Amino acid sequence: MGNIVKQVAVLGSTGSIGRQTLEVVHALPHRFGIIGLAAGKNTDLLVKQINQFQPKFVHYQHKTELPRLTDTECEFLSLKEMVSHPDVDIVVMATSGKWGLSPTLAAVKAGKKVALANKESLVMAGEIITKEAKLSGAQIMPVDSEHSAIWQCLEGETQKPTQLILTASGGPFLHYSPAQLAEVTAEQALKHPSWQMGKKVTIDSATLMNKGLEVIEAHWLFDMPFDHIKVLIHPQSIIHSMVEFVDGSIKAQLSYPDMRLPIQYALGYPERLANPQLPRLDWSNISSLTFEPPDLDTFPCLKLAIEAGKMGGTYPAVLCAADEVAVELFLAQGIKFTDIARLVGQALGEHQAISHPNLEEILAADSWAREEVKRMVGGDSP
Amino acid sequence: MGNIVKQVAVLGSTGSIGRQTLEVVHALPHRFGIIGLAAGKNTDLLVKQINQFQPKFVHYQHKTELPRLTDTECEFLSLKEMVSHPDVDIVVMATSGKWGLSPTLAAVKAGKKVALANKESLVMAGEIITKEAKLSGAQIMPVDSEHSAIWQCLEGETQKPTQLILTASGGPFLHYSPAQLAEVTAEQALKHPSWQMGKKVTIDSATLMNKGLEVIEAHWLFDMPFDHIKVLIHPQSIIHSMVEFVDGSIKAQLSYPDMRLPIQYALGYPERLANPQLPRLDWSNISSLTFEPPDLDTFPCLKLAIEAGKMGGTYPAVLCAADEVAVELFLAQGIKFTDIARLVGQALGEHQAISHPNLEEILAADSWAREEVKRMVGGDSP
Repeated sequence: MGNIVKQVAVLGSTGSIGRQTLEVVHALPHRFGIIGLAAGKNTDLLVKQINQFQPKFVHYQHKTELPRLTDTECEFLSLKEMVSHPDVDIVVMATSGKWGLSPTLAAVKAGKKVALANKESLVMAGEIITKEAKLSGAQIMPVDSEHSAIWQCLEGETQKPTQLILTASGGPFLHYSPAQLAEVTAEQALKHPSWQMGKKVTIDSATLMNKGLEVIEAHWLFDMPFDHIKVLIHPQSIIHSMVEFVDGSIKAQLSYPDMRLPIQYALGYPERLANPQLPRLDWSNISSLTFEPPDLDTFPCLKLAIEAGKMGGTYPAVLCAADEVAVELFLAQGIKFTDIARLVGQALGEHQAISHPNLEEILAADSWAREEVKRMVGGDSP
Repeated sequence: MGNIVKQVAVLGSTGSIGRQTLEVVHALPHRFGIIGLAAGKNTDLLVKQINQFQPKFVHYQHKTELPRLTDTECEFLSLKEMVSHPDVDIVVMATSGKWGLSPTLAAVKAGKKVALANKESLVMAGEIITKEAKLSGAQIMPVDSEHSAIWQCLEGETQKPTQLILTASGGPFLHYSPAQLAEVTAEQALKHPSWQMGKKVTIDSATLMNKGLEVIEAHWLFDMPFDHIKVLIHPQSIIHSMVEFVDGSIKAQLSYPDMRLPIQYALGYPERLANPQLPRLDWSNISSLTFEPPDLDTFPCLKLAIEAGKMGGTYPAVLCAADEVAVELFLAQGIKFTDIARLVGQALGEHQAISHPNLEEILAADSWAREEVKRMVGGDSP
């Protein structure tokens, strides 16, 4: 520890988590440096980031556009080369969707510390990734606020917990009836009450699919059976999750909803770092924290996700892919909000699953599900 | 760890904490045995406990009454002999009032693991006890629910916290006006909304003096400046306390209010033990946890305690002694509820304090305060 500067590679640097990771690094220059940046499509922001952080390595899908825009001397690497480069101390996996899967696996195989914000990696390929991490000694550090909370609560505990309690804000449509839900617009769904996030995650929070994906992640991250993972609606998003131990004692982690805290906790682990930019809870503003069980009938995505997680195999990959396509269709106003769960449920129902799949089989299930959802929608509205 | 049976000596075995300690030991006979029992005055219960737990050592103030009542072969020891006996692994200090001070100090000097429920030890002589513990290697393990919560939240954290947040139920008179408080009876004050405790602690909870004593204890247990210890009213008594870290992250410990959990945590430390008798939080019954700042004007005992703690020296001993006498007078219907704070405040105001006192000076301050309160009350109502 002490004053060693950890070299961080950020995959998905122009997205919400990527930008907040750079804010944390910028606030703590004596502890962290940016050695690599990778982004998919936001050229302007990536160029700005390159100029600001002067990374040694860059990956960009539209590589040819970059040299004209920046004076910085960067080495262009493939994602796989970047995440396994010996000069990289920590890989922040902040890409969204299945694009995170292969680089996550490469970083894990290289034995890196992986700060994982990409949900799909563990949901689609949790068995493969956790197995590879054991072999390589890679450390998977969650960047989700919920899993970070659980990780923090488990710190120093030598015994396996008896229950993980994942909290959920409930999203913007908490207490809506199914009839009301059928009429909500993309604009309404994108207004999350407590978190600032990317579009896909925000819609997933509104359907509770996001919480379902987190249950599957928690299963893999903490080696916990699904029946010992509980979801609790907590609209204020102050308690980020809880852990129950064998003696009935529960630990909770609390803070204002701000992703920079779990990002910083992962980057700095095992050290906590002072960062004046992070907000502190002001108890004079907090009079009540409320809790209620999730409504699985009105928000069936949560139930579908937990079922897919329990069934395992290629089901979670189908869940992710079908949801991604359905969310895109909803955002493009092609389907209703309630169609998201319906399409995901149909895709899961029609899927011929493979147990203990390899990466190719997972990606094949992903492709099948995408086509299947498009086919279903095409069939519905020709 | 594993299956070693830890031998426990319980001082104050017939009081509330003592009885609950014996319940925990009884529930976990493969982990704990009772090697010593000490009690002050409840002969019948002590005899029952001796017959049930067959301790090797007994201490009783009215020793001559015991041999006629029990067949058990016990060795009668002084408290000092018992707490420093090499066969004793853990000393549970569950006596109330200043009577805990000398045996706590003896146990600490003997380098024992001391499960400390006696508040007065650390409040009156925190400086001496923590110094002796450092010298002897004794481990002071809090048995209060609040300090146990903080202890649990600090486990595995390598850095000093930035703030301790002690929660307080607020007692039975939360939101009472000063005028209403002046009229409350002992019977009303003894009805605590969430905790089952001894009479003295229950009245101290109603005045918030108990929370003030806990602030002083926390100061010594966790080496924390008073300005970094906050009190928060939380009427449901589910969150037992919280700890804030340098990054703004907060950890909380939660459970139903049941003293057996902190007792068991201390006895079993560092291991958590399964005990089916301990209740588990049922989130379907918890819809809201509320918080508010304490009203220091209406409940001046909390302010007096924190001030006495900050001033240090013999002030905290005067605080304890004056409060004990005032509570006795209130229970005997000799004074009003609001007189407790008034008398404690007057005693503190008139005290000629000594800095860094030795044990004799602390006990002298205690005696002075007791006489002083009696004198003041005698003067008030001749």
